[in-house]
Amino acid sequence: MSIVTLLTDFGTADGYAGEMKGVLLSSAPGANVIDISHDIPPQDIEMGRLTIARYWHRFPSGTVHVAVVDPGVGSARAAIAVLSDGRFLVGPDNGLLSPALLLPGAQAVQLPVPPGSSATFHGRDVFAPAAARLLLGARLEELGTAMATPVIRRTPEVRRGERGELIGQVIAIDRFGNVITNLLGHHARRVSVAGREMPLHRTYSDLPPHQAGALIGSSGLIEIVVRDGRASDVLSLGRGDLVYLANGPLRTP
Amino acid sequence: MSIVTLLTDFGTADGYAGEMKGVLLSSAPGANVIDISHDIPPQDIEMGRLTIARYWHRFPSGTVHVAVVDPGVGSARAAIAVLSDGRFLVGPDNGLLSPALLLPGAQAVQLPVPPGSSATFHGRDVFAPAAARLLLGARLEELGTAMATPVIRRTPEVRRGERGELIGQVIAIDRFGNVITNLLGHHARRVSVAGREMPLHRTYSDLPPHQAGALIGSSGLIEIVVRDGRASDVLSLGRGDLVYLANGPLRTP
Amino acid sequence: MSIVTLLTDFGTADGYAGEMKGVLLSSAPGANVIDISHDIPPQDIEMGRLTIARYWHRFPSGTVHVAVVDPGVGSARAAIAVLSDGRFLVGPDNGLLSPALLLPGAQAVQLPVPPGSSATFHGRDVFAPAAARLLLGARLEELGTAMATPVIRRTPEVRRGERGELIGQVIAIDRFGNVITNLLGHHARRVSVAGREMPLHRTYSDLPPHQAGALIGSSGLIEIVVRDGRASDVLSLGRGDLVYLANGPLRTP
Repeated sequence: MSIVTLLTDFGTADGYAGEMKGVLLSSAPGANVIDISHDIPPQDIEMGRLTIARYWHRFPSGTVHVAVVDPGVGSARAAIAVLSDGRFLVGPDNGLLSPALLLPGAQAVQLPVPPGSSATFHGRDVFAPAAARLLLGARLEELGTAMATPVIRRTPEVRRGERGELIGQVIAIDRFGNVITNLLGHHARRVSVAGREMPLHRTYSDLPPHQAGALIGSSGLIEIVVRDGRASDVLSLGRGDLVYLANGPLRTP
Repeated sequence: MSIVTLLTDFGTADGYAGEMKGVLLSSAPGANVIDISHDIPPQDIEMGRLTIARYWHRFPSGTVHVAVVDPGVGSARAAIAVLSDGRFLVGPDNGLLSPALLLPGAQAVQLPVPPGSSATFHGRDVFAPAAARLLLGARLEELGTAMATPVIRRTPEVRRGERGELIGQVIAIDRFGNVITNLLGHHARRVSVAGREMPLHRTYSDLPPHQAGALIGSSGLIEIVVRDGRASDVLSLGRGDLVYLANGPLRTP
Repeated sequence: MSIVTLLTDFGTADGYAGEMKGVLLSSAPGANVIDISHDIPPQDIEMGRLTIARYWHRFPSGTVHVAVVDPGVGSARAAIAVLSDGRFLVGPDNGLLSPALLLPGAQAVQLPVPPGSSATFHGRDVFAPAAARLLLGARLEELGTAMATPVIRRTPEVRRGERGELIGQVIAIDRFGNVITNLLGHHARRVSVAGREMPLHRTYSDLPPHQAGALIGSSGLIEIVVRDGRASDVLSLGRGDLVYLANGPLRTP
């Protein structure tokens, strides 16, 4: 049975996600429909992209991932389907699918918008029907015309500061208030953020109660956490705030 | 494999929806359980009804839709199962299932309440067991006795004003703050709401940033939206507020 | 097809639950993945435990329940798998799985942490892989070494007061603001809480509008409810607040 996953910013109460599932199952009744999330903050392409980066390659080859965070629906932005490392992805061409597009060998096609499609709901009228065709065995190139330069969004790059320190930034706050950065944890010894220097720990439990610290999260990225608390609140951190990393002493603003 | 969908106002954290799934899968282990939503606002039958209207007919023939928004559980209100256009629906007789009941040819039966059922949780003890029987191939009439006049709730009707304008109202606010009205979009040219006249656009992207406008939503109904904003907040609109529609000039309060 | 259920405090937007599903389906592609909840309040083991108590035994024999509310992840706390009354459960050894462990005949094994596992995400690297093995037919004892004394959490016990009344407490507030107590409803006649005595009703609808009352909930426990309102707000009740139960007159503080 083919697996199809869904990520949207629709919530569930309005029934938009339900409509998409109905369309999918009407065309591909045997599909195994897996919810990833319908709670992406409305129109937050960046959050959707980071979430997709976590899960898309964890699913087996042949999985069809549908992802809809689509403020430009109905505009000139293209609708695309992607084949990357054996998985399919379907969604708007706004950078949301970048984690799969950035892999060598990734292919993308532009999906036609079927006549009669709603100008405000391509999830139901464009993406779900395309996903259903892939679930039924269609090849990528049957779905549309090759697309050479889909929109790519990237995680902001880490810079090197004047004293050799690495300067990264906060890229996400998770449900626990953990502050996710774009800094890889390999060689870190000292982390400085919000004017405070803090040690690098192995796991939450190594921190004293209610203390802030850094650790290497499950994607390999440095996270700032507070034991039994929300680091984002305690340290007043949000996306884009700078984080410094060094092996020697850090004296950062 | 038979498809069963679930819509409730239970949330998920308390485990009530989990109990229903357990009952369903214990009787019908091969069922394909599809969550529509457990986030219907508590006891909001009207919201549940509008959501069901969106998705119930999108699913394939034979699907069993279970829907529980049930402030009257344990009272004299009946429990019903419905067959309409090839789909089954199971839930309380409080108007929630009206979208399917209003279709010509719809049939309804009253479900008996099994001895020992909880007086506060018919989702687990009445609706899930009835749905399981349908999933296993029972015919509607095997589940209960025919019911001639199930409770019907209808979307408020559009009126015609003194100057020929159509007077509708806000029927829902969606997750994006889009304001859904009961006005069909076919012939609209001018929309007036909250003392402001606004043009009809094709899609969100046709609006200037942060501007309010009207468009035809994916159900064919007029919606009031604000680009990159929440129309319900910006215009202070809520359910029941009046919306005016005309082809000529509108001068409404 | 084997059934696997998921309960976590991860939310869905960050993709952690999505990663777990990918790992499960990569190893056991035919699994029927059932979401119970990802909305357990962060790190609230007690709420997770009470929710598991509701649903775990409702699922058919052979079901694998994965549950992750795990503030101690990466610490010395063990990871366990449990077999109880024909169902499997996988999760941290912090009392979360107590409802199944307390049944006579329950067996538990300690799961090894595979090399390379993240110290902060055992859901993905320890629990999902163990669940996948069970879905594929592994026996419990193949997964780890027998564990004699897993951590047990219990619902607080009911005491008997000086005048023979039963003294219980609030153990949970559900989505509707219903106040769940640890008092069994069998013999109750009079309930007193927050300085107010109130009658025991059969169901919500037996209460006058906006009035508070007690009833026997769907787990057999006494609940304090307000018709068309949130009892927890109206009566300012929270976990641990005392509730008194008697058959004769109650004069409690």
